[in-house]
Amino acid sequence: MKLQLAFDFLELPDITRIVRKLEDVIDIVEIGTPVIIREGIRAVRRMKRSFPSLEVLADLKIMDGGEYESSLAFAAGADIVTVLALADDATVAQAVKAAEAYQRKIMVDMIGVRELGLRAREIEGLGASYVCVHTAIDVQHTGKNPQQDLSEIKRVLRKAGTAVAGGIGLETIHGVLKQNPDIVIVGAGITRQADPRAAAQEMKRIMQK
Amino acid sequence: MKLQLAFDFLELPDITRIVRKLEDVIDIVEIGTPVIIREGIRAVRRMKRSFPSLEVLADLKIMDGGEYESSLAFAAGADIVTVLALADDATVAQAVKAAEAYQRKIMVDMIGVRELGLRAREIEGLGASYVCVHTAIDVQHTGKNPQQDLSEIKRVLRKAGTAVAGGIGLETIHGVLKQNPDIVIVGAGITRQADPRAAAQEMKRIMQK
Repeated sequence: MKLQLAFDFLELPDITRIVRKLEDVIDIVEIGTPVIIREGIRAVRRMKRSFPSLEVLADLKIMDGGEYESSLAFAAGADIVTVLALADDATVAQAVKAAEAYQRKIMVDMIGVRELGLRAREIEGLGASYVCVHTAIDVQHTGKNPQQDLSEIKRVLRKAGTAVAGGIGLETIHGVLKQNPDIVIVGAGITRQADPRAAAQEMKRIMQK
Repeated sequence: MKLQLAFDFLELPDITRIVRKLEDVIDIVEIGTPVIIREGIRAVRRMKRSFPSLEVLADLKIMDGGEYESSLAFAAGADIVTVLALADDATVAQAVKAAEAYQRKIMVDMIGVRELGLRAREIEGLGASYVCVHTAIDVQHTGKNPQQDLSEIKRVLRKAGTAVAGGIGLETIHGVLKQNPDIVIVGAGITRQADPRAAAQEMKRIMQK
């Protein structure tokens, strides 16, 4: 089980500083959508150059132009690129094609999908490496949590890995881990703690139990 | 009726060169999603500084973090920012809130929406300035065209403006114009023509008939 640390709001120098302190604890660094908006794909390039031992995920949330957009991230060094599950099958397939050409991976983000099981099975059929259940930032205040969603996709997937994101912290990680995801994605649950390294280490410890 | 010129694949110096030649013909410059991925939001800032008389649209296709992500673009000088219609209502509402704070506009992109009329009415209720029907690049080869979609949203909208995008060129613009959209979005139909200025002028002429 891998720990993915997601950055959305911090500036690149701060991201680099935090990742340097956590390099031996985390597995994947996520360059979040807002970071890409602010900095462009060079944020991915910098992260991969600074931390070649870590996987770097570019959270592009691709909705169209699957091959071209994902290739921009793979060319910059991304190991994993996200595509929206709500995109057309052709877009997912084109992104998977680019991932195969680069020998990298596509994670499909189920944000906004209603029939999770059905779409997860289709996504797996299109060749994505990971299916990610994701409680949106804008709806986290409703108390919705991703544990039930994770259980729903775990039931149908045979080959694709699973990832889970959305407000996960030390208080909520236990419920999520019951479903045994392949990747646990944490943002503020680590970066906004008084001691991010201690928080990450404690999560990693719980994950390895 | 406004003409929006969309850039996805060209580099910033080439975009600037083309816009300079068409400045008096077009109304809105679209900084496409792939340009934002490559360059970050500075592409919007540069375009607005170089062409203050034109409106600049940032095609962020926001799916989450509506207020924060749209604010990044508005702060950089964007006049219009796109949000996906497939996003949660909360995300659309948060983006509209940011647009109001900046006295700018949100365009909601209907890409991937099945029940166009229903969702267009909801989007209008959330306060978006424009609803855009959009045939995705990845599905344009299927022969799908946006004219029927435009007719479907025109039937239900009362206040929001309409925009139309997806493979529009001199051969297809007549059909689209029958539905009288507020914004016609053209990319390769202008930029990949032997004489982009002549193509844009001809479109503008047809639009003003």
